Amino acid sequence: MKLNITAELDYGMEQETDILMQIECAALPDQRILSETLDTGRTGAASRIAAEDGVGTRVWLTCHGGLRVRYTTEIEIDRAAPDLRTLSAEPVHRLPHEAVRYLMASRYCQSDEFQSFVNADFGHVAGGAAVHEMAEWIRTRFAYVSGSSGPTTTAIGTFVERRGICRDFAHVLIALARAKAIPARMVSCYGPDVTPPDFHAVVQVWLDGGWHLVDPTGMSRPDRVAIIGVGRDAADIAFLTSYGWVNLQHQAVYVRET
Amino acid sequence: MKLNITAELDYGMEQETDILMQIECAALPDQRILSETLDTGRTGAASRIAAEDGVGTRVWLTCHGGLRVRYTTEIEIDRAAPDLRTLSAEPVHRLPHEAVRYLMASRYCQSDEFQSFVNADFGHVAGGAAVHEMAEWIRTRFAYVSGSSGPTTTAIGTFVERRGICRDFAHVLIALARAKAIPARMVSCYGPDVTPPDFHAVVQVWLDGGWHLVDPTGMSRPDRVAIIGVGRDAADIAFLTSYGWVNLQHQAVYVRET
Amino acid sequence: MKLNITAELDYGMEQETDILMQIECAALPDQRILSETLDTGRTGAASRIAAEDGVGTRVWLTCHGGLRVRYTTEIEIDRAAPDLRTLSAEPVHRLPHEAVRYLMASRYCQSDEFQSFVNADFGHVAGGAAVHEMAEWIRTRFAYVSGSSGPTTTAIGTFVERRGICRDFAHVLIALARAKAIPARMVSCYGPDVTPPDFHAVVQVWLDGGWHLVDPTGMSRPDRVAIIGVGRDAADIAFLTSYGWVNLQHQAVYVRET
Amino acid sequence: MKLNITAELDYGMEQETDILMQIECAALPDQRILSETLDTGRTGAASRIAAEDGVGTRVWLTCHGGLRVRYTTEIEIDRAAPDLRTLSAEPVHRLPHEAVRYLMASRYCQSDEFQSFVNADFGHVAGGAAVHEMAEWIRTRFAYVSGSSGPTTTAIGTFVERRGICRDFAHVLIALARAKAIPARMVSCYGPDVTPPDFHAVVQVWLDGGWHLVDPTGMSRPDRVAIIGVGRDAADIAFLTSYGWVNLQHQAVYVRET
Repeated sequence: MKLNITAELDYGMEQETDILMQIECAALPDQRILSETLDTGRTGAASRIAAEDGVGTRVWLTCHGGLRVRYTTEIEIDRAAPDLRTLSAEPVHRLPHEAVRYLMASRYCQSDEFQSFVNADFGHVAGGAAVHEMAEWIRTRFAYVSGSSGPTTTAIGTFVERRGICRDFAHVLIALARAKAIPARMVSCYGPDVTPPDFHAVVQVWLDGGWHLVDPTGMSRPDRVAIIGVGRDAADIAFLTSYGWVNLQHQAVYVRET
Repeated sequence: MKLNITAELDYGMEQETDILMQIECAALPDQRILSETLDTGRTGAASRIAAEDGVGTRVWLTCHGGLRVRYTTEIEIDRAAPDLRTLSAEPVHRLPHEAVRYLMASRYCQSDEFQSFVNADFGHVAGGAAVHEMAEWIRTRFAYVSGSSGPTTTAIGTFVERRGICRDFAHVLIALARAKAIPARMVSCYGPDVTPPDFHAVVQVWLDGGWHLVDPTGMSRPDRVAIIGVGRDAADIAFLTSYGWVNLQHQAVYVRET
Repeated sequence: MKLNITAELDYGMEQETDILMQIECAALPDQRILSETLDTGRTGAASRIAAEDGVGTRVWLTCHGGLRVRYTTEIEIDRAAPDLRTLSAEPVHRLPHEAVRYLMASRYCQSDEFQSFVNADFGHVAGGAAVHEMAEWIRTRFAYVSGSSGPTTTAIGTFVERRGICRDFAHVLIALARAKAIPARMVSCYGPDVTPPDFHAVVQVWLDGGWHLVDPTGMSRPDRVAIIGVGRDAADIAFLTSYGWVNLQHQAVYVRET
Repeated sequence: MKLNITAELDYGMEQETDILMQIECAALPDQRILSETLDTGRTGAASRIAAEDGVGTRVWLTCHGGLRVRYTTEIEIDRAAPDLRTLSAEPVHRLPHEAVRYLMASRYCQSDEFQSFVNADFGHVAGGAAVHEMAEWIRTRFAYVSGSSGPTTTAIGTFVERRGICRDFAHVLIALARAKAIPARMVSCYGPDVTPPDFHAVVQVWLDGGWHLVDPTGMSRPDRVAIIGVGRDAADIAFLTSYGWVNLQHQAVYVRET
């Protein structure tokens, strides 16, 4: 499938501020960038570096007074979407080190605290079937409520409150999967099925020797999202990290299937 | 300098349990392994993988009933110990991506929440001088009290309670440095000056294009520690991560200068 | 002084919901209700009970579909405003039990975790002088930023982030005072100097045998606020506690000196 | 039934320290003190005050160098133990104000965050039947593990980790009951069935116009415990609150049915 994607960001700030931005789709074997433009206005891109695990890139911007960004791309996605339930977990001692890293607890995913719960409630299933059940458990038990969480909300808070947005659903699934010894990482993406249109966050789990997408909100499908970047949790894939106080004035995302 | 190091671990467990262990000194340009033995008893090492950032290795062990480990090494350390205050921070847009990763908040170091404090209390200094002041502030304001923290204690908790052990001191320094846009990572190590002898944790900050050690407890010196591994915080450098309930029965560390 | 106060609340809800409301000024020796009206629309007041410590009252409302409240009062305030620095703390063993209760940690004020900090930074002052210094420390170090905190933000979070609104400033002062063994409670109130006009929260500390008001935001003065209620922290003095999901549609507070 | 109870405490401290102690059984309609002695060594009781809700008393002690306490009592307990499932919740608007206080969130029981979970998982039952189900859910799903929690562990942490000790089990039940609009408070007590013998903590819920005991650990029965005090949670019923650092050297509790 092909997607036309546009993202607009408009921030105000009072002082010169360093901004680390990651909003561009990654060039990957299963998604091909057909065209793209990034307009950061008067703010030149100070530098561009590889993002986590080499998936996508980040741009440093030094901003004075404000930041107005317009990003457009056309992208072709050709990704398999196997049924998670058919995929097996690898024995941990066969995991490569780049997957083992994603067994560790992180800022928003305190997987170390969920072991007892996972053993009790998901001890009867394994591998992809376990991830599928966990994602379904989240999708059916948690309420998707805009504004019900904030930037410091963690998987523990969401697990207790049983509501949140895409980032929160993803954090809980990641915490549960890691507690089950299944590597899990967070994925920022664009998708035509996300309502209302916005940056979206889903999960990748390591099964059968590779990363596989799963969306615990149920809003998107693996073969219909354009991946921006990956990381341990929201701390790694923020579309904008600022060193200084910034004030969001406008943000819009448009995704259209072509 | 040369160190003779011995570490002994003895754990009990009721079920077959997967254990990820990282207690061996890393082979590094500034520390050379002269000899080493790792005895894991009947438990064979299931596999060995690279650890975070390629510093050291981790071993997967599948344990039945218990785990008894004895590790010994002789190591030669030849590390410069420049005065931190003479080192500069790099502008963030010149940081390599492997350093940028260590600007992000992590499980125990919620650096995102410390920006206002750091701006107010450490806004007047920069680079290595700032890190030096932060480390001194922690060393003189926080009490080192065994048993005053636990495995889920984070930098926020320690910052408020003003006491902890080496891991807690390190977490606070990492959180403050990152909030100042200085990459910081945690280092597990052995040192002859650690009292009482135990696994130790210190910090590395990225200054002048490289990683530099700093110990906010004041117990060890950069040129007198043997590095085991590195990572974002304690979640990454645990000497033992278990998937199942284990019970520590004995642990001892001996470090002697030769 | 005399104040004319109007408060308007408009909430939507989908199900029949029990609401506990506390927005009316308390009748107290140092503030006299001259007139008051409470209009809760079709929703009859199901019952009225004494509020915490007998300061003011709470009303239970059973709401169907929505809640529209309009409260108006004229109140005369005649309260002394002694300089806090002239007041002494009582030795703890002379505190009456109704003050001792306010030494304990509460939902948003984890005073137990602040003892080391308070000993280190406020160990040199005592009694009212200590409270004055704590309030000034908060007023000058913390930024008042609307929207920077949420309903689950605690004193620990605010202490670390160094910003918040009136409730957060009050929580930190309460936590610090209790850690210093000075009883402290939270006060909901109206004041003509609050900008923008809104429900306000300040602190009372027990000194020289009685409760004394202090506002760590610096916005109001003890002799110029109309007290609604008191309690351990925001959990006790919420103007509206609902058992079910409610949606704020409109809220306005007007306070005018006459 | 009659109980012989002995409690011994031995604390060391470096400085003169104010201690608030609550270890003596309360005189109540359903438990009668037959005899009692409290020996606090050289430390005279500085004062005695009523404890929370007038249940029992607290003693202030000013200690120099150390505190050695020996308390013994003989008590007769004559308490009904109705089946919780036969008791009804009162409509909230008929609750007396002394019960409404125990609907509020507190230090260790963040009941406000559990509403969605309680609605989803305990929405089908009401009153005492709901409390019974909640207590059974905790008893069967949570592991009682000494040392698995600490003094700052809250209901949220225990709910996620699924393990703790009596105080943690009580905190979770209190949080769930309050989220269901059933007033709940914490009770410190002695019981002959507590293994190993120690101070114990259980819960009282307000049903059918009165407080009723329930023990989510399943260790004790309502008619077989001697109540010490009550409060919102562990913060209110600590047997020892110190203003300064104290070091527990010895603690023993003996409870024998006679």
